[in-house]
Order: sequence, then C-alpha cells, then structure tokens
Amino acid sequence: MYSFKDDYSEGAHPRILQALVESNFEQEDGYGRDQFTQKAINFLKERIGRANVDVHLLAGGTQTNLTAISAFLRPHEAAIAASTGHILGHETGAIEATGHKILSIETEDGKLTPSHVKAALDGHPDEHMVKPKLVYISNSTEIGTIYSKSELQQLHQFCRENNLILYMDGARLGSALCSEENDLTLSDLPALVDAFYIGGTKNGALIGEALVICCDSLKVEFRYHIKQKGGLLAKGRLLGIQFLELFRDNLFFDLATHANKMAEMLREEMNNANISFLTQSPSNQLFPILPNALITKLQSKYSFHIWEKVDADHSAIRLVTSWATKEDEVLAFIEEFKKGSKNDQAYL
Amino acid sequence: MYSFKDDYSEGAHPRILQALVESNFEQEDGYGRDQFTQKAINFLKERIGRANVDVHLLAGGTQTNLTAISAFLRPHEAAIAASTGHILGHETGAIEATGHKILSIETEDGKLTPSHVKAALDGHPDEHMVKPKLVYISNSTEIGTIYSKSELQQLHQFCRENNLILYMDGARLGSALCSEENDLTLSDLPALVDAFYIGGTKNGALIGEALVICCDSLKVEFRYHIKQKGGLLAKGRLLGIQFLELFRDNLFFDLATHANKMAEMLREEMNNANISFLTQSPSNQLFPILPNALITKLQSKYSFHIWEKVDADHSAIRLVTSWATKEDEVLAFIEEFKKGSKNDQAYL
Amino acid sequence: MYSFKDDYSEGAHPRILQALVESNFEQEDGYGRDQFTQKAINFLKERIGRANVDVHLLAGGTQTNLTAISAFLRPHEAAIAASTGHILGHETGAIEATGHKILSIETEDGKLTPSHVKAALDGHPDEHMVKPKLVYISNSTEIGTIYSKSELQQLHQFCRENNLILYMDGARLGSALCSEENDLTLSDLPALVDAFYIGGTKNGALIGEALVICCDSLKVEFRYHIKQKGGLLAKGRLLGIQFLELFRDNLFFDLATHANKMAEMLREEMNNANISFLTQSPSNQLFPILPNALITKLQSKYSFHIWEKVDADHSAIRLVTSWATKEDEVLAFIEEFKKGSKNDQAYL
Amino acid sequence: MYSFKDDYSEGAHPRILQALVESNFEQEDGYGRDQFTQKAINFLKERIGRANVDVHLLAGGTQTNLTAISAFLRPHEAAIAASTGHILGHETGAIEATGHKILSIETEDGKLTPSHVKAALDGHPDEHMVKPKLVYISNSTEIGTIYSKSELQQLHQFCRENNLILYMDGARLGSALCSEENDLTLSDLPALVDAFYIGGTKNGALIGEALVICCDSLKVEFRYHIKQKGGLLAKGRLLGIQFLELFRDNLFFDLATHANKMAEMLREEMNNANISFLTQSPSNQLFPILPNALITKLQSKYSFHIWEKVDADHSAIRLVTSWATKEDEVLAFIEEFKKGSKNDQAYL
Repeated sequence: MYSFKDDYSEGAHPRILQALVESNFEQEDGYGRDQFTQKAINFLKERIGRANVDVHLLAGGTQTNLTAISAFLRPHEAAIAASTGHILGHETGAIEATGHKILSIETEDGKLTPSHVKAALDGHPDEHMVKPKLVYISNSTEIGTIYSKSELQQLHQFCRENNLILYMDGARLGSALCSEENDLTLSDLPALVDAFYIGGTKNGALIGEALVICCDSLKVEFRYHIKQKGGLLAKGRLLGIQFLELFRDNLFFDLATHANKMAEMLREEMNNANISFLTQSPSNQLFPILPNALITKLQSKYSFHIWEKVDADHSAIRLVTSWATKEDEVLAFIEEFKKGSKNDQAYL
Repeated sequence: MYSFKDDYSEGAHPRILQALVESNFEQEDGYGRDQFTQKAINFLKERIGRANVDVHLLAGGTQTNLTAISAFLRPHEAAIAASTGHILGHETGAIEATGHKILSIETEDGKLTPSHVKAALDGHPDEHMVKPKLVYISNSTEIGTIYSKSELQQLHQFCRENNLILYMDGARLGSALCSEENDLTLSDLPALVDAFYIGGTKNGALIGEALVICCDSLKVEFRYHIKQKGGLLAKGRLLGIQFLELFRDNLFFDLATHANKMAEMLREEMNNANISFLTQSPSNQLFPILPNALITKLQSKYSFHIWEKVDADHSAIRLVTSWATKEDEVLAFIEEFKKGSKNDQAYL
Repeated sequence: MYSFKDDYSEGAHPRILQALVESNFEQEDGYGRDQFTQKAINFLKERIGRANVDVHLLAGGTQTNLTAISAFLRPHEAAIAASTGHILGHETGAIEATGHKILSIETEDGKLTPSHVKAALDGHPDEHMVKPKLVYISNSTEIGTIYSKSELQQLHQFCRENNLILYMDGARLGSALCSEENDLTLSDLPALVDAFYIGGTKNGALIGEALVICCDSLKVEFRYHIKQKGGLLAKGRLLGIQFLELFRDNLFFDLATHANKMAEMLREEMNNANISFLTQSPSNQLFPILPNALITKLQSKYSFHIWEKVDADHSAIRLVTSWATKEDEVLAFIEEFKKGSKNDQAYL
Repeated sequence: MYSFKDDYSEGAHPRILQALVESNFEQEDGYGRDQFTQKAINFLKERIGRANVDVHLLAGGTQTNLTAISAFLRPHEAAIAASTGHILGHETGAIEATGHKILSIETEDGKLTPSHVKAALDGHPDEHMVKPKLVYISNSTEIGTIYSKSELQQLHQFCRENNLILYMDGARLGSALCSEENDLTLSDLPALVDAFYIGGTKNGALIGEALVICCDSLKVEFRYHIKQKGGLLAKGRLLGIQFLELFRDNLFFDLATHANKMAEMLREEMNNANISFLTQSPSNQLFPILPNALITKLQSKYSFHIWEKVDADHSAIRLVTSWATKEDEVLAFIEEFKKGSKNDQAYL
C-alpha cells in the first residue's frame, strides 16, 4: 500500500546518507561546534543573503517552536496564531508548558492578516489579560496555503508598528517557496520576519530544522535555551552534515519542487474531475473533498488521512507529496481515482 | 590531533549507517509508530528480560531526563542528585525549567547511598520546603564510577521504603555494564530502578536514548510528555533503526567493551607510572592527575578536557574512550605519555 | 458618585472588622495553623455537611484557581472552560503560566453542558494534543447565570464517566446559592463537584476564598502547592477570623441575599421598562442593554462598566450589587433610570 | 504560654485596624487603583527619597519574591543566594516552579560578598549551565545579620560591573534599618539595589509587602506579573490602607525599633551570662546556644523554635521579638532564663 499520509514517511535523500557515511570517522567537537555545522550555517547565510542572522540547527519542529517562542517572550506575553496553527492543536500544549498562552484566531485560509492581529490586540487592553506579543504564522500553512510577498509585507509592517515579534514556522517552507504561486524568496525573509525556520525533516533530511533569527535582540544567548529545552544534540554534526548537503547546492529547492510537481499532477486531475477542495493549496498538501465511497475504494490501495467530514456523503482527505514521492505511484493513484470517480459520478 | 575529549566525536557504527541506507525508501508511519521502532523495542525488552516495561526512544540525554522527571513528579516534588549529577550542572537548568528543584548532595565518588538520601528527607520535613520524591543516579557516573549490584539494591530498598522514585541516567550505561568491575546486568535493572535509560549517543548511535519505564504508575500517557517537550521525532524510524541494529545482536555491548578496553590500556599504563586519579573509574572515562608541564606537552598532539586544578603544579584531565577509539591512537598516546612522564619525573 | 462597578468596592462587613479588633493581640501560630482558621474550617464543614472534605483558606480567586488547577493536573493535561470563564480571559494567563492549556468553549449563557465537554474530548483524541482533564465552571458565571441542580448533576455524571475533574469557581457562589432561581445548597456540592471554592472577597470579607476539596486523590499534600504558589499567608489568622465570622451563623448567606435583593429591585424596574438584558441573570450582576444616551446620563451620577456595544445606539452595561449596596442608592438609581428612560423612550 | 516563635503571631498595630474601620464604607476602585494605595505609594516614595521608583503592594513575601524574580529573569537565567536564603529552603521551590534555578552559596553569616558571587560566575561559564543573573540577598538575613552600607556598596558595584541584578528581600527590613549597628537608610537603597521590598507582615501589618523597583528596565509591565501570579488583590485597599498608616508618619520605624529593643534586652542578658550565639545578630532574631536542660525548662513557659542541635548537650534556639512583643514578657523570660541558667551552670 502506497502512502500519501505525510512527507516524513521515508528516510533521507541518498546524498545525505552518503555524506553521513563519508564523514563518519572524522572527529569533531560536539554540540554544534563541528565544522559541518559551521559550513552549513555559512551556506545557509549565503542563500539567505544576510551575514547578520543567527542560524541554529535543531532536531524537530515542535522543539524549535517551543525553544524559540519561550526564549522570545517574557512570562506575561502571549502568542497569536491562526486556529489551524500547529502550535495550537498539534504540539500537546508545548508552548503553554513553557508558560505562555496562545490566542487562537479563526481564519478562512490558515493565514493571519493585520486585521486579525489588531482584533487580538484590541481585545487585550490591560494587565488582567495576557499581552499579545508574538505573531506565529506558518508558510506553507497547515492547510497548504502560502503567504504572498505582499501579504507578508503588510503583516510585517503591522507587527513593527505595534512592537510585535513576527515568527514563521517553516516546517514546509521549501514547498511554499517552490510553489508556482509563490513570489517570495528565502532572501526576502530576514526583512519581513523576526525569526523563521527552514524545515529539513519534511524536505529530505532525517531530522533537522534550521532556525534563523533575524532580529538582534532575539539572538542573545540563544544556545542556552536550546540546551535547556533538550535540543542541543551532542552529535550536532548529524544536523550540520544534512543541512550542508541540502544547501551546498540547490538540493533543498529541487526536492521541494519535486514534491510540488507531484501535488500539481494530483490537483490537476482532480480539477479536471471538478472535485472541490477544502482549501486552495498550491503546495504539497491537498485537501480534496471526495465521496465517501470513493475514499473507501482508494483506501484499499493507498494510505492517507481523512481530514474532516464535510457532509453525510463526502469527506475531505489529505494527500501529501514529498521529495520521495514516486511519479509512477502518483500516476497509478490518478488511474485509480479516475476509475473510482467515474463509477461514483453520482456522488460528485 | 587525536581527540580523547568525549565519546561523541565520531558518527555512528557503520552497521547503523548501513541499516539507514538499506531501509531508506521503505514507507513507515511517523512518530515512533514505525516497524523498526517496534522491533527495536521488542529486542530491548528481550535483552532486559521483561515484557511489562514501556520503552520509548528519545533523541538525547537532557531531553530524556527532563521529559521523564517532569512527567514523574508533581509540582511540589523535587529530585535528589549527587552534586556531580549531569542534571545539576550540565543541563542549563532543564529540570528547574519544568518547575522542579534538584537537591544537591555532596558525595565522595558521584554515587548516592541511602544515608545521603535519608539526610535529604530529614532536611525537608514539611510544606515550607519541596518534597524530595525522585532519586537521580547516573551509571556510570559523571566521574566514571559505577554502582555495584549491592549498592543499587540498598538504594532501591531505601527508595521503596520511603516511597521514592529511583531513576537511573544511563547515558554511559553500556560502559558501566561492560566494566570489569561490574556485577549488574541489564536484566537486573527493572527490579532495581523505577525507570532508566540506555544511552545510544555515547555508544555507537548518531543520536538516541532508550528510556525504560518499569514502574506501572509512571507509564501512564507518557507519549504525551515526549510530544509536549519536543522529543517525538516525526521520523522516529531514525531512532528505531539504530536501536534495532544495536540490540539485534550483541553490538551495543561489544562497542562498550571496546571503549572500556581502550580505557583500561590507558589506566594500566598510568598505574604503572604511579599516576594518581581524581576518581577510581573502571569505565570509559579516566581522570588522571598529571603535572601541568606534561599536560601541555600532551595537548600538542591530543585534545582532552582539563577537568580541574589539583594544586599549583598538577591538574586532573579527563580522557574519554569510545566505541570508535582506535587502538593505535591509544598506543601512540601511551608512548607520548611515557616520554613526557619520564622527562617530567620530578613532577610526578 | 455611587458605584455599581463591582462587588469589591467597600471594605468588609463590620462584624469582620470587629472580630479582627477583638482577636488582635491573641498570639497564634502562623500559616493557617491558628485556632481561628481551625474553627472556621470546622464551621465550614458543618455548613457543607461533610467532615471528609479538606478546606484551605486562600487570599484571592486567581490565586485559588491557579493553585488548585496546577496541583490537580499532570503536565500534559488541560482545563476546559466556557469562553467567558474567568481563567480564560481575566487572569493574565495564570493557568498557562503553570504550564497548562485551557480549551475554550463557546456557550450561550456561560455554562458548560455535557455536550460541550464531549466535543472537547472528541477533538483531542491522541498524544499530539493536550488531554482534557479538568472542567472549570463558575457559579454564578461571569455573566450572572447560575447552574441548576439538574444541570450540575448531568455535568458531574458526564465527568465521572469520563474520568474528568469537575472544579467550580465560586467567587460569587454566595449570590448563586441565594438566588431565587437556585435549587442547589452548599451541602449538595461535595457530591457534585471534585473541588470548589466559596468566595469571601466578593461577599463581605476583606480578602479570602475557602477552597473545598472533596475528591480524596486531589487532597494529597495540597498545602505544599499553596506555599509554592505564594498563597500561604504568614498571618493565616486574617483569613480564619473572617471565615469564622461569615460562617459562625448565617452571615455569609444574609449578605448574599442582600446583594441579590438589591439586584432584584434593579431588574424588576428594568423589566417593567421592557429593557432587554444581554444575559438572564438571577444573581447580583445585571447586564441591561440601554440606549447610549441614557448610559451617558446615568454615568454622570453612577459608575459602572460598559460591557459591550450591542448596536450603533445601544450598549450592555454591567451593574453589580453587593452585601454593601445601599437600598437608598438603588432607589435613587431607579429614579434616575426612570427619568432617563422616559425621556429616551424613543431609543428603547 | 508566651511566644517568641516569630514576628507574625499577633494581628496588626491598632492604628491599622482603626484605619480599616474608618475607611470601610468608602467606595474605591479595585486592584490597587484605590486612593489609599496611591497615597501610600506617594508616602513611600517620599521616605525612599526618590520619585522615579515603582512601588507595588503585594500580600506576602514568597509571593513578592516569586513574582519579582520570575519577572526579572529570562528562562535560562538563575538567581544566586546564600544557602540560608529564604527562597532556597523555605518557599517550597517557588522560584524553581517559575522555571529558574537558584545557585546556593555557603556563607559564614548569611550575607553574600562579591567574592561569593564571583565564584558562582566563574563556575558557570557557558551555555551548558544556567547563567547567573540575579543576586538575592536578605536584610536582615534569615539568621539575623545585617548588611553595612559599605558591604552593600561593594556588592552593588560588583553586580553593576557584571551586569547582575541585585535584589533585596526586606521581609525584616524594618528591623535591619533600625538596628543599632545599621548605617543604611531607606533612601540609600535605590542607589544600591535594583529592587527591594519593605516587609509589612513582620512589622505591624496584617499582610503586605511593598516592592520597590528602582531599575527602569525591570519596571516594564510589572502589574501583569502580579496579576498572573495571583498577587493582585481585588480589594487592594487592604494593602494601601495599611502602608498608608505605617508610612504616613514614623510608625513603621517605631515598631521596628521596639522589636529591636526587646531583642536587645534579651541579648544583653545572655551576653552577661556568657551565652554563645550561633550568629551575631543585631536585629530582632536571636540564636542563643543553650543547654538542652535549660531549653526544656524554658519551653514549659515559652514557645520558640529549636533551630539546630549544636552538640550532644546544647542546641541553638531562635527567639524572635516584634512590634507586639511586651516588655513585661521579656522581663519575665529573663527571670526564667536567669533562674534556669543558674541551676544549669554546669552546662554552660
């Protein structure tokens, strides 16, 4: 059974494994003080186009979010997030466990706008309530949508005017930046957000997220926070070698482009079949709304998440493609889908 | 320059890398629900000799300690540790960051005894003070010593009688169990401690610690805690594959035995030269007290930590061997040491 | 200007001050070990009709909520509350600061039902999310409504079936229990909730809330938590003397009855004038919706909170009565209201 | 039985109770926004001699310490305290519960010096350890000693040079400042510490500590922290009225002077009898070392704490005097002591 459940079903891109093998017996300092990590950070800074950012390599997304947000906020300050935000519903209260409330905002498409944030500020005027301080956004979002440059600029400007920290969760930043609808580049980000991370785990690495801190005041003594929260790996080389390989050339972007292309094939076919989508996603996660009978049929050959019930006869499913998704399998899925949807025409 | 700085200077045992390569494109569920992790846990339970333990694979030692201890304690409860304990001085307040005080106990050799623990209990009689609840020990300790079976039995009995949780940090458990002076086995542990972890990072893995929870009441909903603290890796397979390889046969113990043998060679030579040691370590960390001039000479060819100043002319250094330490390099170091100590005879 | 802003605008009932004066030079043990506290607790247990509850006297409501909830929950567990719940929006993230998420539920009337709680449970099925464990309710609620015995029984049964802790914030429990619509008694509560508190601050005391823990497992070592969170007053007598006075006879209930009667006079008059209310409150907080012009007029002689804008011309205000509210002032307010509403008839 | 157990055995100075009675029915805003609190703060600023300090009134010492320290520190930063410090051993891990380690320093006399602090800094050089940031001192200390102006100047200078926050716990600041050996004034403090509190509970108030924040950067949004930690009393007037009474004239200092004078009478008599003291305390706590037989005799008429066993036949006891201590009782105690020590001459 082939899986479209997520983008972390396989191991790592073979070049990464090869790099691990080749470097294996070189002795290096621990805790990210190794040469691989240093080189990886240098490459990352080049791609980002800024020398004056701090880059830290961490193992996973929840770890990165909780370490960054708890380091950035004072005890009475809160984060603001879309209700779909990963930190709100999928990290087991990790942020609250560090002492901070997250204010949840209902959105149409998983993206925050200045007016969303303004409403949160207006609703929290005094010391009887938390003070909203950090705006958490994801790009691509948890429901596949992406921020345009203009949207991000407006949000950034509002944050700057209101002394708010803008933080971007980039677990799927590769897919966002390589989307056909995207007009942002990696080098745009330091001017538009105060910190963000570049997700490796979901784009070809075994593990690893590269946190980029752009705002000077947020950089101070950050390694203490990584260590305190359990994120400073003794063999930091494991992270360094992977990001070095992903960013020594265009590999990171090539992998994301492949994932998006696989999603595009699925999307196009479903559009042709007049399938509706729960969200308009131009990235590697699709949320088609299918007849339940068709879903059952597809489940006999493919694994994927049923995202939510839409009506008595239809549900949205989530299909995720990745750097490792095989074109043959996508084509085979499309065939199955065509067969199934033809039979189920009545449902569509 | 060859390094005896620590036991995490190299990558992983080649069999582990090979296993990562071979399994790379198999699709698996995330978050430790993959078949490799399940198999690894089964092998671990076999080696431990108990089916009714819970095993969780985590990325690193600090992560494991903070997740376990914060899950095991109620807010007003405290841990007790030797002053040399890793959680006290080398984890950036990770335990306190989860809300718990650690009571520090001065010891001779890094090991806690019932009388140490009793003193801590006696000193904390009421609700104006924290309630000591968890006894943290390391085996081997941070200064290389190991617990005998009898010592552990006595400590365990005291803990049981006083309703205390006994937790063993096994970052270097492999070296402890494979020490020539050791009389404990892995299968002794579930009857003697409430939880412990088996360190992979310092014994051949890229990353990874296997937390074993023996006490039923501590098992409840533990995966929530791993997730909340950022330790539930999306690609849990990375941990599963490594522990599967380490425990499918005797690899884990073979690697620790090698590390100990390399240390033994160093120890023997220094004993021959009448060198004193800061602690009597039968494991893979040695703390010889050397003349500063000799230290300087050795530093020109080897890297290692200077542990502490002993007197105006002498310091203790730390030499660490590992699964990856090369016998040739140990022999070469011994030669350097002999040459240096002969010249420096006056200092010794 | 007379104030209907809240029920903590004055000091304490004169009998309480008198008791403080009379007991002033008796030497007593600190930290709630004084005879007054012990006697007060005995009286409270008599009124509650149960000997096997634990009673602790604390200084304020936020203190009580954060101490109880953080003591009752393990790190991964969350509270569930109506979106109007005091802990959600009016305690500056106090619960989150102890590490716990609060799940917010939209309600019609500030009260939680089994179906509300069920939805929260259903939405949190696994370890990637917090585990809902404690149901927080207020009686009376923050918007003046009260729980009927039947409503509370149903909620309690659901909680028991689902292994949830039911906790009642009783900052205004006096007003709730003395409401004409109420069919609950103090002695009903131990069988219906796991813990609750009886608010003194808003019903005649200078400060003080009496936390009653009914469930045995929640009682364990609770004084440690009070001390740790800063709530164990050295001069615990201050709390003991007050609750002793409030509960040595019927004073507590007499005071609440007075507050309700004052509210009833206001409510009746507004009902006569066909004023709508934001919520149907049978307790000491009223939320009439008034024309803005009338509000402005009333503000020239009375202080009260403007609760929320209802439409372009109307807003809901909050009028709060208390043990100290003077009947003359209520009558005078009614006169002003009548005059104003007559003139503003067009608006109503 | 008369008590010398502590300085919080009685209620409040009668003038305070009188002020509560007189102001009782004036309606005031809640949460410290009342006129009494504002006036009290103005008087305090006058006594302190500085307008540019922020003053907040809180209910108790542990509450004040945990609110201030957690507000002042970032997550990885630690406090430094003498091992006798109240936050270390008598607050049930309140500071650790907010996430911060306290580094314990052994001292001779309960007082920290620059060399103590320097040792703590030297021992915490990197991100694997917490970062010492706040120096916690008590004046008078928990064992009765007081800081001289010169000692405090040196400590302050060291802290300033090392970018450390100097925080003074003034639970017994009154007694310290009114000690015959003291050369500090209240108005010296803003130039010498970054924040301190003036203890009311142990010097004539029912409850109440006045936190004075001198350093601008520590003032920001402090009321949020008070509220979040449960310390913002609805009837803040209770604190305001008390501090207004204590500081509208010299009452606060008169009360402390009385306490010290009572202690002086005891000390002098014991000095005459050649009694040794555990610590040389010039304030309202004395720690005489007495024969156990004498202690037993005194216990039949007086209550006090046995502080620690000194040898097989002797123990140190703690005698505490206060604003409420009666001279007659001190004289009677002295008589008992004389009788007892004459009989027990052999023991002394």
